[in-house]
Amino acid sequence: MILMNVSALETPAVLIDLDIMLSNIAQMQRHCDALGKAFRPHIKTHKIPEIAHMQLEAGAVGIACQKVSEAEVFADAGVEDIQIPYNIVGERKLDRLMGVNRVCRLTVSADDPAVIDGLEAAARRHNARLRVMVDLGTDIQRTGAPPERVVELARRIRDSQRLDFAGLLVYPSTVSNRPRIQAALTMLHDAGFAVDSVSGGGIGGAAQAADVPEVTELRVGTYIFNDVNTLNAGLCGIEDCAMRVRMTVVSRPDADRVILDGGSKTIAADRTDDGHGLIVEYPEARIYKLSEEHAHCDFSACSARPSIGDIVHVIPVHTCVVTNLHDRIYGVRGDYVEEIWEVAARGMVY
Amino acid sequence: MILMNVSALETPAVLIDLDIMLSNIAQMQRHCDALGKAFRPHIKTHKIPEIAHMQLEAGAVGIACQKVSEAEVFADAGVEDIQIPYNIVGERKLDRLMGVNRVCRLTVSADDPAVIDGLEAAARRHNARLRVMVDLGTDIQRTGAPPERVVELARRIRDSQRLDFAGLLVYPSTVSNRPRIQAALTMLHDAGFAVDSVSGGGIGGAAQAADVPEVTELRVGTYIFNDVNTLNAGLCGIEDCAMRVRMTVVSRPDADRVILDGGSKTIAADRTDDGHGLIVEYPEARIYKLSEEHAHCDFSACSARPSIGDIVHVIPVHTCVVTNLHDRIYGVRGDYVEEIWEVAARGMVY
Repeated sequence: MILMNVSALETPAVLIDLDIMLSNIAQMQRHCDALGKAFRPHIKTHKIPEIAHMQLEAGAVGIACQKVSEAEVFADAGVEDIQIPYNIVGERKLDRLMGVNRVCRLTVSADDPAVIDGLEAAARRHNARLRVMVDLGTDIQRTGAPPERVVELARRIRDSQRLDFAGLLVYPSTVSNRPRIQAALTMLHDAGFAVDSVSGGGIGGAAQAADVPEVTELRVGTYIFNDVNTLNAGLCGIEDCAMRVRMTVVSRPDADRVILDGGSKTIAADRTDDGHGLIVEYPEARIYKLSEEHAHCDFSACSARPSIGDIVHVIPVHTCVVTNLHDRIYGVRGDYVEEIWEVAARGMVY
Repeated sequence: MILMNVSALETPAVLIDLDIMLSNIAQMQRHCDALGKAFRPHIKTHKIPEIAHMQLEAGAVGIACQKVSEAEVFADAGVEDIQIPYNIVGERKLDRLMGVNRVCRLTVSADDPAVIDGLEAAARRHNARLRVMVDLGTDIQRTGAPPERVVELARRIRDSQRLDFAGLLVYPSTVSNRPRIQAALTMLHDAGFAVDSVSGGGIGGAAQAADVPEVTELRVGTYIFNDVNTLNAGLCGIEDCAMRVRMTVVSRPDADRVILDGGSKTIAADRTDDGHGLIVEYPEARIYKLSEEHAHCDFSACSARPSIGDIVHVIPVHTCVVTNLHDRIYGVRGDYVEEIWEVAARGMVY
């Protein structure tokens, strides 16, 4: 439904092209369907329950989110299958986790016996059962156990009175991590474990998924909006970038310098070698610096220059952190706003 | 009043040491008083009306904020003198600006005739007068006119039927920019302008204020909390850093790697050569990478290692962008929470 012309929005404002977003949703689901893998979108990119329901309607098996407070928002909004690929630590937080576990099919992960013990104690306090995956470490060196510790962790889950072993978790499930996945699976199979789910992820992992047949499920977030990072990685074209941040030119201090009214509070401080984002109307321009409320742009390579008051649209470097800065984002078709979404899980860090 | 023990807070949580904050407020006010300069705190660092009132109570003449939507929040909360050192552009936004202008002593800035024309038209629509400073460009190359254009802009303000020339605005007012300030003032005086206010700013500008006597007013934000940036610049000690982000150790994947439960969604992606912040309990540790929800830390230089579940406190690199990520921050004394502040102007980018 047309709500208003986009010109009625103050700038800066985060716009989502609805047709591009719907196309991205359908395309990733088709990609996973064709590979015979379950698809579990990571909601970190949008943080909006309405959009999660569109992804589920398209065929996703459930969602992934990163924190208990995010899971609460999506469980409250009726999402029935939630995975939190995170070590949940701390008694209060575990009690809240068990509240979510009561109302949906919840799965968490663990990379250490201490984490598993906390999960078991929480399940016991709440007289419930909880599904736990073993988090396998990868070449990004974040969390995750090495392959040789995976069997010990799986056993600790299985031997507990309250936990169910729910498979192997890996991020990102790129080809570079396939040897680790294979090693862990071999050891699990040799120890007598059935591994129903190998949940992989990352937009790179999704692109390489045909070459990592061990993975049964893909978690991907960024694909729904895309950004300069996915563009530079060759994973999409500009026509697949659904998020564009509408900004106004507020200063033209010299011949080549143009200042926009959005800075690191609007599009976050992320950058690439080319700067802090792509100006759609002036692809040769370079956002070379961000203050909190200003984008500093060099237009020396452009044949034309905008005037004070002109509107431009910026494709950000990293879309997920942009969503997290805004209370509302807008779904648009052409010049019209058709959706006003509250970013319901914005700022949910705990 | 003691509300609860800090251990009742989920992590990550942003804590403000109340005694350090109050000491920072008093110290900057004394510094400005001793120099005979007006002090106008920039609220971008806290975005909280209650804290602005503490700064006003201590002697500040008013506040500065960067956007109209921020000014609305502080005007609603009873702040009576607000400066927006920003080119306000666009008819809708200007109409909202005039609403704020109706209820408090408002001052804005301009660096271009087109901006001044927009301000005049808005003042005319609202049958009001508006105070406008001329924004002088500096060596940070953001907005601002060169000295030789300042008289033309001051004249355009004075000659309008609706605007009042309110002085010269400069950021940052460091010694490096003093020649520009002097050149602009000489030209203004020669053209017959009385310049009642020269509003400077920046924490560096405040530190060098004794050597820039032309500046009559200082705008500073970060001093109230301080951070690794001000620490590294030699402008404060660790004992002056009021903001500490309480985090939990959630993973210990190998001997030297420690993962905390706050990432770029919690402390923003800003970094220095030393990493993404200082861990108070382990100053030799290095936060070498942030994911959205994880801090990746190298503890190889530390003699001790924390366990999963341990609590640590991180002084962030840039405090202002941290506040902007959180709906609530907490004022603490020792182990007790005494204030729960809503970050009322969080996310106000327009």
